[in-house]
Amino acid sequence: MRLRLVMLGTAAVVLCGAAAPHGFSPSVLIGIAVMLVVAKLCGEVFEKLNQPAVLGELVGGILLGNLALVGLGIIEPLKTDQIIAALAEIGLLILLFEVGLETNLREMLEVGWSALLVGVAGVIVPFLLGWAVAAYFTPGEAQLSHIFIGAILCATSVGITARVLKDLGKLGTREARIILGAAIIDDVLGLLVLAVVRGAIEATGAGATLSVATIAHIIAKALAFLVGAVVVGQLVMPRLFRGVGRLEGRGVLLALAISLCFALAWAAALVGLAPIIGAFAAGIVLDEVHFEHLPEHTQHDLQELLQPVSLLLVPLFFVLMGLKVDLRAFAAGPGVLGFALALTVAAIIGKQICSLAVAERKINRLAVGFGMIPRGEVGLIFAGIGAALMLPNAAGAPVPVINSNTFSAVVLMVVLTTLVTPPLLKWSFANRPRSPDQAPDSVAAQKIADENIERTSR
Amino acid sequence: MRLRLVMLGTAAVVLCGAAAPHGFSPSVLIGIAVMLVVAKLCGEVFEKLNQPAVLGELVGGILLGNLALVGLGIIEPLKTDQIIAALAEIGLLILLFEVGLETNLREMLEVGWSALLVGVAGVIVPFLLGWAVAAYFTPGEAQLSHIFIGAILCATSVGITARVLKDLGKLGTREARIILGAAIIDDVLGLLVLAVVRGAIEATGAGATLSVATIAHIIAKALAFLVGAVVVGQLVMPRLFRGVGRLEGRGVLLALAISLCFALAWAAALVGLAPIIGAFAAGIVLDEVHFEHLPEHTQHDLQELLQPVSLLLVPLFFVLMGLKVDLRAFAAGPGVLGFALALTVAAIIGKQICSLAVAERKINRLAVGFGMIPRGEVGLIFAGIGAALMLPNAAGAPVPVINSNTFSAVVLMVVLTTLVTPPLLKWSFANRPRSPDQAPDSVAAQKIADENIERTSR
Repeated sequence: MRLRLVMLGTAAVVLCGAAAPHGFSPSVLIGIAVMLVVAKLCGEVFEKLNQPAVLGELVGGILLGNLALVGLGIIEPLKTDQIIAALAEIGLLILLFEVGLETNLREMLEVGWSALLVGVAGVIVPFLLGWAVAAYFTPGEAQLSHIFIGAILCATSVGITARVLKDLGKLGTREARIILGAAIIDDVLGLLVLAVVRGAIEATGAGATLSVATIAHIIAKALAFLVGAVVVGQLVMPRLFRGVGRLEGRGVLLALAISLCFALAWAAALVGLAPIIGAFAAGIVLDEVHFEHLPEHTQHDLQELLQPVSLLLVPLFFVLMGLKVDLRAFAAGPGVLGFALALTVAAIIGKQICSLAVAERKINRLAVGFGMIPRGEVGLIFAGIGAALMLPNAAGAPVPVINSNTFSAVVLMVVLTTLVTPPLLKWSFANRPRSPDQAPDSVAAQKIADENIERTSR
Repeated sequence: MRLRLVMLGTAAVVLCGAAAPHGFSPSVLIGIAVMLVVAKLCGEVFEKLNQPAVLGELVGGILLGNLALVGLGIIEPLKTDQIIAALAEIGLLILLFEVGLETNLREMLEVGWSALLVGVAGVIVPFLLGWAVAAYFTPGEAQLSHIFIGAILCATSVGITARVLKDLGKLGTREARIILGAAIIDDVLGLLVLAVVRGAIEATGAGATLSVATIAHIIAKALAFLVGAVVVGQLVMPRLFRGVGRLEGRGVLLALAISLCFALAWAAALVGLAPIIGAFAAGIVLDEVHFEHLPEHTQHDLQELLQPVSLLLVPLFFVLMGLKVDLRAFAAGPGVLGFALALTVAAIIGKQICSLAVAERKINRLAVGFGMIPRGEVGLIFAGIGAALMLPNAAGAPVPVINSNTFSAVVLMVVLTTLVTPPLLKWSFANRPRSPDQAPDSVAAQKIADENIERTSR
């Protein structure tokens, strides 16, 4: 840092670092500016190509992060900057908060058996396949690391699917409703799997032996946290937010909502869960409870007020994930690329098998399976958490659960699963007669689809 | 059993710090949540009392920061947390960016001689008085420290004045137009004074001797930066933002605007100016240039999109400033309290003298002088910058230009000047006949007043 500044050769620059109001280096500012511009430009390009903006942000981050390959090392400090990492993580919390706000518990209970079965099978089968692939390709890593990769393969991001279904005018089909319903189940189950695997890793890191009792304890804790948050929320929040309704500033609503999000994220961390679980719970609590007691526009207000904040902070997360992808990992040999392709195949096959769980007849199972393929932002979120979790290696030194090579492989898997989905989905519908009970796109299906599309197109 | 659980819990807490995605402690999250809740609740209380919300945020921060006096030390880590400091500074940049967006250069050129003279005198007289008071009360401090305190007394925050004038229906008076016009001049001159004093401190810190040439160099640099930014902006931005206009996402507009703000803040730091000067310049550039080439709603869009971001981040800055006030400084002896009161008197008298500069007859000079009293957010911003600037003391060790006691005194001055303004202003209008050329509140005056009110009532 000091060396770099001295190389620039002006005392003014050295001083401005020390003289910034709270000692934060101004180079962070230009870093954020560059990341935002790259995110938005690449996001726009991908949107024009009918791909989700989030994929553009990720690819933009990959390009930016590998400028060192053409001799530009200027981006390197961004990858490890504390402030940028913190802003990206706050963006992530706000993203999960928004997902929670969009996750209606009642809708979840109404998705029907097929969606439930597909959702559950779609978590279990890819989990096992991912575990197996990881064990085969990285035999030197700890078993918990393999299990974590299984967890990464669990969760689906159906944003791109929802957009394709909308473009095809297929949102009213039974298949679309199963896919969108299963995706809601997926979000919750995925977070639960994350909680368990993360808890297991922490217990092992702390020297405990992993037992069925430990796992049961973690599951119980995570469930208790989610249920507890919703129940307490149901009791406390209406009163609190009725009070807020009387206050004037729209800023009060936004600030209290974000405060609840951060407070529950902190509480989740306190009981050993990932902070994103708390942020998600905060969204569910606010969605379920109070808005019925508030003026009609308030919920709309909150999501609208949140949008600019998430428009700025969430792309920072995805660009940062891209920055951390080292393309040299793929060039070094066939290992990482093979791993990435095997993970992609596991991700695709896992969701095809789960589509067999559809309990109804005359359903286009192929379409359901294809629709569930994309791993998108949830896979990235889990990979990012894994990259920060530590496990002792054979020599007892802490190493990340998801190392740099594995992280790069996972990101490639995320990109590939998202890219293959639109053509596969179109093909599966083109090859089949019209679904028997196709209704006009229902309002509910439209809404769920829009919410999922929005998650990937900020 | 209970003990083991507690130990497990502790292990989990310790681990979750290490296990958060990028190693940022979850306690920061609850810190931000508490600061936001305090900011909004105290802000609401002060608004109900017809005081600006920003004063509530400041007082809330003072109360929170002095909980240690009643044995609660839990807040202490927030005062020095890097992430919270960074968020607060980003909030500050966004605030100055908004101020820049609201500063119309053409309006500034049209304010007339009286406003110009009042503005210039209102910078010079309080500067000299503040310098003298500081030299008297803190003879042990460096001369540049005294000069910096003079600079703190320069800038006016007429948000509370604008609100009182609006409440009294006096926005259409000549007095109101002079006050609001002078406040625009004040903003720019204040930033210039800051640039000079800050540059002088840095030059001294780097071992240079301070000469007229150095000062002229700094003034030239600051002016060149502001003028250069506006001119380059005028040439480059219309094309750039015409391109943006073609892009779909509202997020693109917001992200590019913030990127420009951060990039110019970085550029300002690079040439040795305070980052806030760059943020302010970015606002002026965007205000002046491109919106005429864009669909009509775009500028409105940008300010509306910025609002939620500033609603969250700007209060963090003011609460943090409050947190840093040590009430024990006032209890330790009459020194700091006396200093604060003397500064307050200097701030009040300085603006009374400057009202003599009004070039017109039949003007309520008392009202003009009273209206210019509040130092509000600008004084705090300067004090915060001074607290982070370092000067070598007699022994050669670096000490802050604004030490903890002086900072507390400045904050008290800010609070007092804001509190005394509404009653003084009401009294000055009540005691005088109707101003000779009172017009109905003009649209332009309304707009400037609203912008100034908004700055203090987020």
